[in-house]
Amino acid sequence: MLKAKERYNVAVVGATGAVGEEMREVLEERDFPVARLTCLASERSEGRTLEFRGGEVPVERLTEGSFDGVDIALFSAGAERARHFAPHAVVAGAVVVDNSSAFRMEPQAPLVVPEVNAHALKGHKGIIANPNCSTIQMVMALKPLHDAVRIRRIVVSTYQSVSGTGQDAIEELFEQSAQVLNMQPPKPKVYPHQIAFNCLPHIDAFDEEDYTKEEWKMVRETRKILEEPDMRITATTVRVPVFRSHSESVNIELEGPMEPNEARALMSAMPGVVVLDDPARNLYPLAADAAGTDAVYVGRVRRDPSVPHGLNLWIVSDNLRKGAALNAVQIAERLVETARRG
Amino acid sequence: MLKAKERYNVAVVGATGAVGEEMREVLEERDFPVARLTCLASERSEGRTLEFRGGEVPVERLTEGSFDGVDIALFSAGAERARHFAPHAVVAGAVVVDNSSAFRMEPQAPLVVPEVNAHALKGHKGIIANPNCSTIQMVMALKPLHDAVRIRRIVVSTYQSVSGTGQDAIEELFEQSAQVLNMQPPKPKVYPHQIAFNCLPHIDAFDEEDYTKEEWKMVRETRKILEEPDMRITATTVRVPVFRSHSESVNIELEGPMEPNEARALMSAMPGVVVLDDPARNLYPLAADAAGTDAVYVGRVRRDPSVPHGLNLWIVSDNLRKGAALNAVQIAERLVETARRG
Repeated sequence: MLKAKERYNVAVVGATGAVGEEMREVLEERDFPVARLTCLASERSEGRTLEFRGGEVPVERLTEGSFDGVDIALFSAGAERARHFAPHAVVAGAVVVDNSSAFRMEPQAPLVVPEVNAHALKGHKGIIANPNCSTIQMVMALKPLHDAVRIRRIVVSTYQSVSGTGQDAIEELFEQSAQVLNMQPPKPKVYPHQIAFNCLPHIDAFDEEDYTKEEWKMVRETRKILEEPDMRITATTVRVPVFRSHSESVNIELEGPMEPNEARALMSAMPGVVVLDDPARNLYPLAADAAGTDAVYVGRVRRDPSVPHGLNLWIVSDNLRKGAALNAVQIAERLVETARRG
Repeated sequence: MLKAKERYNVAVVGATGAVGEEMREVLEERDFPVARLTCLASERSEGRTLEFRGGEVPVERLTEGSFDGVDIALFSAGAERARHFAPHAVVAGAVVVDNSSAFRMEPQAPLVVPEVNAHALKGHKGIIANPNCSTIQMVMALKPLHDAVRIRRIVVSTYQSVSGTGQDAIEELFEQSAQVLNMQPPKPKVYPHQIAFNCLPHIDAFDEEDYTKEEWKMVRETRKILEEPDMRITATTVRVPVFRSHSESVNIELEGPMEPNEARALMSAMPGVVVLDDPARNLYPLAADAAGTDAVYVGRVRRDPSVPHGLNLWIVSDNLRKGAALNAVQIAERLVETARRG
């Protein structure tokens, strides 16, 4: 449990990664009450310094002893490191918000999108899981619709940017794009195939039933966050040659009637969701516009006449912000609020 | 009606466009029995010459009188020009295969994918419509499944390349990509928004119910080709920064059970369809691999447990080949066969 304090010692684990960088920015932008920031990373980054609030913070090597005096540890260092180091952080007295998949499906770990299920934070055991980026933006848009008229089924196809993979994938898209423009053969390193000017229907490893782990995450995490263990969901997750922001084509069946305008109004009233939906003005959410912003954008809201109460939606959000760093910091903010309220 | 001849006078209308270029290539590759090739285009291209079978063919200006002596006219010049000039070609004695949307939904015009519904060519009135590229590849993959166990419902999300828009869009993606890589602001001209490193959920103009015309094409053309006027279909069509080949995430509900392996076997037996589906070897269809080839590729075949008889598929094909030029030439080949059989 976090104690009430004026300011907190915060550690960012994986501080030099794409999400870690964003975490520092979000902490600063939102004026999170940071007493001391500790930047932890692998040996490779030791000795580098990172900017924070106009000063320089040295990058320290992540060890089991890194968490002395840390109140809040924001992890974005992959599932393996989270499994190893998060328990050490908890034992040292820190509350962990982990961005990896390591703890998401563990019953004792709350899986939280603050606008959707902040109540799940209650009684946490020291580790709180940040959901998968594609799941976060989808549940943000769907939660108000589900509360109004239960969702029976979701069919989602994603258009996910390379920054979800990490900094090396951003560089790979950059390099391969230049190679293709210069008529050179693109060289895949991070991805198994060319990502420049191509779409890969393959995110994370393949798993049971020939679904990828990313696809299972969308199914299982959505069920856990919405507290609907039997919700009917199927997903196809696709990597597209976009640097930042994930887009999603989402088809839902509701239990009762809902006009597109009603859906737009419900989503507009949801904190953190912005409806951009005016076809006459070519207005709809775009990955390039969402990049670097905090909201989840929804557009292309249309009736799907192929089922009784069907709707189609196009949902876009910056996967590094609301999909990762921002959501993690928002969780920390809720913990601080709760501590202060006593 | 086409008469039986040794060789035919063929006109390509819109010969300098992305599909027109491909039509010449396909005619040559498949050794179509061309007596004389006439390349027709707008005034702008008059005076250029185009290669064909090692020789040079002058580009002539398209006029109402361009079709004297032409047996087969392959149109790829947009709906407006097709509406104006196709009737003149028919009156001059030519059979027209039109790649635009002008005649597709007219009851007297067969809408044909030869492997799927060649029988519809019978009794044509001189104009045969080539379906929309995204529709062609989808019906190619779904036809054998529909024949085996009726399809109840289709939910499709597309990942369409810029070559579907035309040569100027190919150049736009090229230029904007270079601009972004050089940290310059990309300048949209062909599309209403940046296409480089972005996804636009907007193909063709917006139409009734806030669907785009492209989305309605997929719904209505699929129904016409499969001869299922009430088939339940919904589509979301999206432009992605890919030069060539369209990808599609297709979710279907069947009327009865079908194992993924059964679906793979049925599709493998379909002429023109190639199943690429081995997750353990990272094998699935890719736009970059399909470019320049003739087949429709299907992979990521999975059970969708969110409905009784659900399946997910990933369908990829070169939109300029099977999606346009190849399908048009295949229609012409069927007409020639029929003529020769008498």
